[in-house]
Amino acid sequence: MFTINENYLKLQSSYLFVEIAKRVKEYQTANPEKKIVRLGIGDVTKPLTSEVIKALHQSVDEMSQAETFKGYGPEIGYEFLQTAILENDYKKRGINLELDEIFISDGAKSDLGNISDILGQANRVAVTDPVYPAYVDVNVMGGRAGIYHDELQKNPQKGWSNIVYLPCVAENDFVPDLPKEKVQLIYLCYPNNPTGTVLTKTQLKVWVDYAIKNQALILFDSAYEAFITDKQIPHSIYEIEGAKEVAIEFRSFSKTAGFTGVRCGYTIVPKALLGYLSNGEKVILNKLWNRRQTTKFNGVAYIIQRAAEACYSELGQREIRANIEAYLNHAKIIREGLQGIGLTTYGGVNAPYVWVKTPQGISSWQFFDILLNNIQVVGTPGSGFGPSGEGYFRLTAFGSLENTKEAVARLKDLR
Amino acid sequence: MFTINENYLKLQSSYLFVEIAKRVKEYQTANPEKKIVRLGIGDVTKPLTSEVIKALHQSVDEMSQAETFKGYGPEIGYEFLQTAILENDYKKRGINLELDEIFISDGAKSDLGNISDILGQANRVAVTDPVYPAYVDVNVMGGRAGIYHDELQKNPQKGWSNIVYLPCVAENDFVPDLPKEKVQLIYLCYPNNPTGTVLTKTQLKVWVDYAIKNQALILFDSAYEAFITDKQIPHSIYEIEGAKEVAIEFRSFSKTAGFTGVRCGYTIVPKALLGYLSNGEKVILNKLWNRRQTTKFNGVAYIIQRAAEACYSELGQREIRANIEAYLNHAKIIREGLQGIGLTTYGGVNAPYVWVKTPQGISSWQFFDILLNNIQVVGTPGSGFGPSGEGYFRLTAFGSLENTKEAVARLKDLR
Repeated sequence: MFTINENYLKLQSSYLFVEIAKRVKEYQTANPEKKIVRLGIGDVTKPLTSEVIKALHQSVDEMSQAETFKGYGPEIGYEFLQTAILENDYKKRGINLELDEIFISDGAKSDLGNISDILGQANRVAVTDPVYPAYVDVNVMGGRAGIYHDELQKNPQKGWSNIVYLPCVAENDFVPDLPKEKVQLIYLCYPNNPTGTVLTKTQLKVWVDYAIKNQALILFDSAYEAFITDKQIPHSIYEIEGAKEVAIEFRSFSKTAGFTGVRCGYTIVPKALLGYLSNGEKVILNKLWNRRQTTKFNGVAYIIQRAAEACYSELGQREIRANIEAYLNHAKIIREGLQGIGLTTYGGVNAPYVWVKTPQGISSWQFFDILLNNIQVVGTPGSGFGPSGEGYFRLTAFGSLENTKEAVARLKDLR
Repeated sequence: MFTINENYLKLQSSYLFVEIAKRVKEYQTANPEKKIVRLGIGDVTKPLTSEVIKALHQSVDEMSQAETFKGYGPEIGYEFLQTAILENDYKKRGINLELDEIFISDGAKSDLGNISDILGQANRVAVTDPVYPAYVDVNVMGGRAGIYHDELQKNPQKGWSNIVYLPCVAENDFVPDLPKEKVQLIYLCYPNNPTGTVLTKTQLKVWVDYAIKNQALILFDSAYEAFITDKQIPHSIYEIEGAKEVAIEFRSFSKTAGFTGVRCGYTIVPKALLGYLSNGEKVILNKLWNRRQTTKFNGVAYIIQRAAEACYSELGQREIRANIEAYLNHAKIIREGLQGIGLTTYGGVNAPYVWVKTPQGISSWQFFDILLNNIQVVGTPGSGFGPSGEGYFRLTAFGSLENTKEAVARLKDLR
């Protein structure tokens, strides 16, 4: 008989969004006349910009003629897009890369999942807490999570015996402490989802130094770097000395350019980054990822790579900046609205997420119910991102201006 | 220190296409005035059809307006495309499926690679020989290939101790025999790449029956089904009774609709298909693949799913058929050209590949060199697909009519 990967059976059900959908549906069914405002999901609402649309139409036309038609492209991406990324996202910040250190993909979620393929099973994983749930699930699938403790069912992120959780809460200014036990794989997401907080260069350097000292690997998710407004905050982990030897960086056009439905991202695997065999021998990780991608992936659509390239034209950059500033303005409206009713907020300055402390010891889910029942606003309970998210709540700036204002106007009825 | 997946170090270098490129480059450098005709790579050359182009332009326009903009879609695909696939590719052949048994992806190569994720490491793999090399490489990465025997370096497909090779050669009419030792995972690709041969329903039923009896899993790659001209040949493995209990089917728009640079395919994982834990307990495979895709994949671009849908309109179907018939005509020209100089050919009737027996005991690589040096035609040495490919040579019908005719005209100089 053929066997399955039994690690999949250890996965906990994705309780969070199923439960949210269930409660919203129940409320709407009972109250069909109420208009619900959703600030829960991290999906963009602004359409693609004119430069991106133009590039799509032009490249679609290329695909209609034999002379300009493109079949299979290079699995790791066309040089025109790798070059645009290098020039704009890296060289301008003083970082140099070779083109074949830049792997174009159909999005950061794919790469953050697939990277597990090239890593050993015995590595101990550290995640910040609260955290994007997929980091954990991918490592459960990969056999690195250990045993799940049933008594912690209500806090699914906490229960894995072989995963080290690094609390990020108001008490430590959302800056994770170094782990007490040794870890080999460290997931860092900055600007952070869900807390909207950032790390300074000094704070990030602590992690790079740790990774160098302990021969650990940092998986750095910077999908939200375009939202950074503070000039002191690093956009890339490679702004930190030594990071090329210990970090893979995951980037996406999803939030930067509204590509959530277009699917394009990229992953940097520097050639200076060495992995280890169990006998201590060293291996160039770039070669492994290249082999993985050329064997199990066939590149991103030509038209979509042209669309991504268009984000880097002068007009393309202006248009994208305008959208990001609009979302950041939504974040400001949300922050000020929450503060206006006496709540404490975090994030939302260098990120599209506002993380709010629930008042008076109210739990994350209780706060969810209050917002839904009293003012018909949907957000995300912080506890759904991990136990250290308990007592917090996430609102996103990706709604329309109208909905954002409407949600904030309703907040006043909470007082 | 963090460790890597050491199975990657066992991978043999992709000798075949590197070596072809090297020899072609050397020849062209030495003979810059010669025009080389390439019939080696399985990539299409005809542009996208008018219906597909229209759907792309329309959906790009939708993405330019907030009211019609699409962000994240369902990870496993939009219902409009799942429905079109179900109605056209399955119901018309008497096969019923539920929509969530149809997983839309960015191509069969991705799914054929990623499916390894949900399968146990201890399964013994069988592949037909010659074979698409990625099937083997994926299982090397997944730790299922065992030890590679160095003395067989020249036949990379042969050397894996835990992979069972099923020869498909003229002597058995390219119909693989059932394996003598028990296997759990069976890769079948029909119409076949590289041989261009097919299996009848009776021949395919032997494998379905084997899988049922042995609780094995068939990974059925039917990327070339649109090229079937013989009405007796099954397009889907689900035309065989019981196949839903033992087979996953991989499909692609790449060769059907010229989507090699557009990236869309789909994979059928029937809910009747059960996998096993090592203790014999049963698991619904559809749930595992759903979890894999929702965790490590974020769906195919909306505009590309609209493009795929357009292939199923009445005009879309006519246009695609016309392209396939043109390619099949190229295959006929190639077959007849080869036969005209006294060579024996296989395939090329229900597939875009013509598999030719090299004459007089000439090896695959010797034949490659003769074609390159004497008539400047590039094909693919059969031995590159596995040891049973030795003494054969692959030519593809995906070139232009002009190039195909030119290659065949030059064949006469070989006599």
